[in-house]
Amino acid sequence: MPTTAAPNKRGRPGYDQQSVLLIAVDVFNRHGYDATSMGILAENLGISKSAIYHHVPSKGDLLKLALDHALGGLESILEQPGAQSGAADARLEFVLRQTVAVLVERLPFVTLLLRLRGNTDIERDALERRRAFDHEVAALISAARDEGSLRQDIDPRTVTRLLFGTINSIVEWYKPGGSLTPEKLADDVITIAFDGLHAQH
Amino acid sequence: MPTTAAPNKRGRPGYDQQSVLLIAVDVFNRHGYDATSMGILAENLGISKSAIYHHVPSKGDLLKLALDHALGGLESILEQPGAQSGAADARLEFVLRQTVAVLVERLPFVTLLLRLRGNTDIERDALERRRAFDHEVAALISAARDEGSLRQDIDPRTVTRLLFGTINSIVEWYKPGGSLTPEKLADDVITIAFDGLHAQH
Repeated sequence: MPTTAAPNKRGRPGYDQQSVLLIAVDVFNRHGYDATSMGILAENLGISKSAIYHHVPSKGDLLKLALDHALGGLESILEQPGAQSGAADARLEFVLRQTVAVLVERLPFVTLLLRLRGNTDIERDALERRRAFDHEVAALISAARDEGSLRQDIDPRTVTRLLFGTINSIVEWYKPGGSLTPEKLADDVITIAFDGLHAQH
Repeated sequence: MPTTAAPNKRGRPGYDQQSVLLIAVDVFNRHGYDATSMGILAENLGISKSAIYHHVPSKGDLLKLALDHALGGLESILEQPGAQSGAADARLEFVLRQTVAVLVERLPFVTLLLRLRGNTDIERDALERRRAFDHEVAALISAARDEGSLRQDIDPRTVTRLLFGTINSIVEWYKPGGSLTPEKLADDVITIAFDGLHAQH
């Protein structure tokens, strides 16, 4: 969604909705959504409250736009051919790899999604969509297990929880632009999850 | 630490320091430490603010006691023989298994530790001790890699981050007393981390 930034001369902020959204998400992540007022947002943007209202009608609309961006990225993974045909373990690998990619590409948006408390309808709707995504992945894990390609000695629910724990934790430490590329990170996650850390003999 | 509960007749709360601490940690986890006042604590305990001060001098002291309990549990793992002698991969497995055990046994305390923002000296000291623990585990991961027992194709820093991501996420979903025992959970974490999810052929 945030593809091209609006022309923006230093000292004379001329934001478009995407730039407002990016800064708002950053402020939400730092202060928490509940604790962020339109006044705090205006201060961080260096514009007046009425100028924000020019871009979006409310704080809730900013939240909804941001969560749509995170969830839209995740949901579109499941619609791709790699998620829809082939052996279940290959589809699972595809989905996990793409999940890491979306998480890294839309890092602040997914961070916001993962930290939701569920205090408002917008948050609860987003959590519902996130649960639906998680259920699709859980179903793939069960399918790969039934197919015989995943080990049978661990409850698929535990597998799902631990895999999401691993992947979601990436938002807490990954720094884009460093030596660890998104592709290598996705490879590492897939390698550890499927083949483990032990040296292969 | 919270071993025996104080005698506590219904309707006439007679708390000892441990019971106050357990309830305080629960309130901190639900509302956030910053947002919790001694007044909110008193309300949750059903006693007066002055009665809390009978047990602990301040909110900070409760936080410090709680974090000491979490950190003390983690730090004591590293002093056990299983962490100190043997091959590095066996020591690593021991430490990870015990970390899961401490996390589950002291769930609300470790949850509090993992959610710290670092706004006060007490929090910063605790985060420093947690980093020191993480560094010891990272050193074990590097040692196991140098020893040849862990795969060489993943940066040990990435391995450390992902392993802690997996283990720390347990506080977000694990329900003590359910069908998944702490021992089986620790087994599952170790199995996935070292051997991966793929069925063994």
